[in-house]
Amino acid sequence: MLVQSKPYRTIWPHSDNTGVVQIIDQRLLPHEFVVVDLRSVADFAIAIKDMYVRGAGLIGATAGFGMYAAALHSRDDHFDEDMQGFAETLVATRPTAKNLVWAVERQLDAIKDLQPPEKKREKTFETACQIADEDAQFCKQIGEHGVEIIRQISKRKNGAPVNILTHCNAGWLAFVDYGSATAPIYEAQAQGIDVHVWVDETRPWLQGARLTTWELKEQGVPHTLIADNTGGHLMQHGQVDLVIVGTDRTTYCGDVANKIGTYLKALAAHDNDVPFYVALPSSTFDWQICDGVDGIPIEERSGDEINLVSGQGESGLTTVSITPENTKAANYSFDVTPARLVTGLITERGITEANKESILALYPEKK
Amino acid sequence: MLVQSKPYRTIWPHSDNTGVVQIIDQRLLPHEFVVVDLRSVADFAIAIKDMYVRGAGLIGATAGFGMYAAALHSRDDHFDEDMQGFAETLVATRPTAKNLVWAVERQLDAIKDLQPPEKKREKTFETACQIADEDAQFCKQIGEHGVEIIRQISKRKNGAPVNILTHCNAGWLAFVDYGSATAPIYEAQAQGIDVHVWVDETRPWLQGARLTTWELKEQGVPHTLIADNTGGHLMQHGQVDLVIVGTDRTTYCGDVANKIGTYLKALAAHDNDVPFYVALPSSTFDWQICDGVDGIPIEERSGDEINLVSGQGESGLTTVSITPENTKAANYSFDVTPARLVTGLITERGITEANKESILALYPEKK
Repeated sequence: MLVQSKPYRTIWPHSDNTGVVQIIDQRLLPHEFVVVDLRSVADFAIAIKDMYVRGAGLIGATAGFGMYAAALHSRDDHFDEDMQGFAETLVATRPTAKNLVWAVERQLDAIKDLQPPEKKREKTFETACQIADEDAQFCKQIGEHGVEIIRQISKRKNGAPVNILTHCNAGWLAFVDYGSATAPIYEAQAQGIDVHVWVDETRPWLQGARLTTWELKEQGVPHTLIADNTGGHLMQHGQVDLVIVGTDRTTYCGDVANKIGTYLKALAAHDNDVPFYVALPSSTFDWQICDGVDGIPIEERSGDEINLVSGQGESGLTTVSITPENTKAANYSFDVTPARLVTGLITERGITEANKESILALYPEKK
Repeated sequence: MLVQSKPYRTIWPHSDNTGVVQIIDQRLLPHEFVVVDLRSVADFAIAIKDMYVRGAGLIGATAGFGMYAAALHSRDDHFDEDMQGFAETLVATRPTAKNLVWAVERQLDAIKDLQPPEKKREKTFETACQIADEDAQFCKQIGEHGVEIIRQISKRKNGAPVNILTHCNAGWLAFVDYGSATAPIYEAQAQGIDVHVWVDETRPWLQGARLTTWELKEQGVPHTLIADNTGGHLMQHGQVDLVIVGTDRTTYCGDVANKIGTYLKALAAHDNDVPFYVALPSSTFDWQICDGVDGIPIEERSGDEINLVSGQGESGLTTVSITPENTKAANYSFDVTPARLVTGLITERGITEANKESILALYPEKK
């Protein structure tokens, strides 16, 4: 999508063909736009863990390229052993993200029958590029399916702007391109359907305030930022037509792990008859777990992310403390929205209800 | 309550008897503890509007003393006319707060039959002190009634800490002393019942992160700060035994206006069978309005409170911008929790269900 009117992806191999991969350092957005080079597996692990990159699809794509870096740095005579170690390093960075494990396993699977190591290395590059291209393609298809929901609401409102609430950033910055939750919005814009987005700021890391506002602004989509506390009030007063969020892991029974606070918006949507959709490529499905509240591990991050807030100060990026000294803070990154609160899942294959039968009907090969 | 082990109220007449009233500037907490002198009605209006003071009871008490300042500055020959103008100035500062109107009307009512103006002036001082003393007394009684709820849960848990979630600051800083939501907690502490408080940080103004943490710390009550997004997840996992919040206005049918985001916590409590209590002195009841979602005016404040965050930086209090330039933000200060989601109201007269019949049974003089 556009950055200062120039099209970008969130991750790409450096044009010099030396094995370097480039990303946007999302920690600095919206204040600074900085491209970072990743070389070693440690570079990739840090980029994922410290959230230079984040978001379901982009974590997967970064892990894909991370496995290419792993192949480049594995010794010829201990190749499989080295790869296994690197794979574990990458998988350990973010426990909730399904796409991470999925991408690492896809890479290991792709090379398992190849010899010699050089062929494996070539294959990991090819697979990493495939993962990235597929991610972009799947998001585009999510947009094409999801726009129909927006179009119907627009028709019902006689073309008045469709108010869509989203939580966190499931935009193109969370994927390789287009985004999941934002793909139907960008598609609506492309088709000339009027939309307006309520952007949850998404504490503590402020993905909404920092990233979703930035990408919607660069793309020219009308939007208004709100505190996370606000969505219920807006829904009570008919100011939200539709909620679309992304997900970091969705079980085959339709329970949705997403950024902490998503569950509260789903409850409010349910209480006010507002449709609540979750957009995801199939790589985000967990085909092993049914009960998400019990089964999906929820990442806990440092309390510093709550006690400290960074932003643009008079002399550049500045961090301030908002609490009394030594305040203990608990920082759970995700919560699980039970399937009963989800109106539907928008996938690259189409829209499905959030239950085992419907999901498996769309992905019969997983039965 | 305690500040550095010394007992304080949130508002008090200066000991020099010159008509000056003193408050704590809550905008600077927890980083700086500064006492401010209020003299003119404009001082009082700014203190309320710009949130030097905030919270249901304290807004009422400040308006009470503000009417004393009004009496001091009203001309003998235009006394009633001047008082009316000052009253309107005070009432216009915060549209949702019920205690504000209540205190101003109580002052006007107390002096309406007195003459000459000097007698009226004396009476406004007396009434302002009464409002403040009553507020403290009522909060103490709220604590004595509310502690029984905590005691029962503590018994059921065999003395293990009772986990109480609260939103915003309905602590002693929001009243004259003790607080409403915190009064049962402080009473539990005094009686040796183990409690632990989950403190919602409460964006955008961060009353929880800045004020509730600070007063609980000064008072020595165990607590953990969380992002507002977190409560639902904690309830799903059995980590919240009880929610207690305050309110800025509660209708006689039991609908509760409180800090934006309260409704989302009430939905989560309801979905997880967690008791959801609202603590309030009777001055917070609105005896005119039944349907709170339709009837209670909701204050909108500047979007700057969302786009900008202040805290302690390396060189003192610092403000940073967390969003792209020119981001439009909508800042609704309150939402309304329908009575159907409220387990009970804890008042100075006892605990009641949140419906018209039960509330009027407790306040028969309002029938």
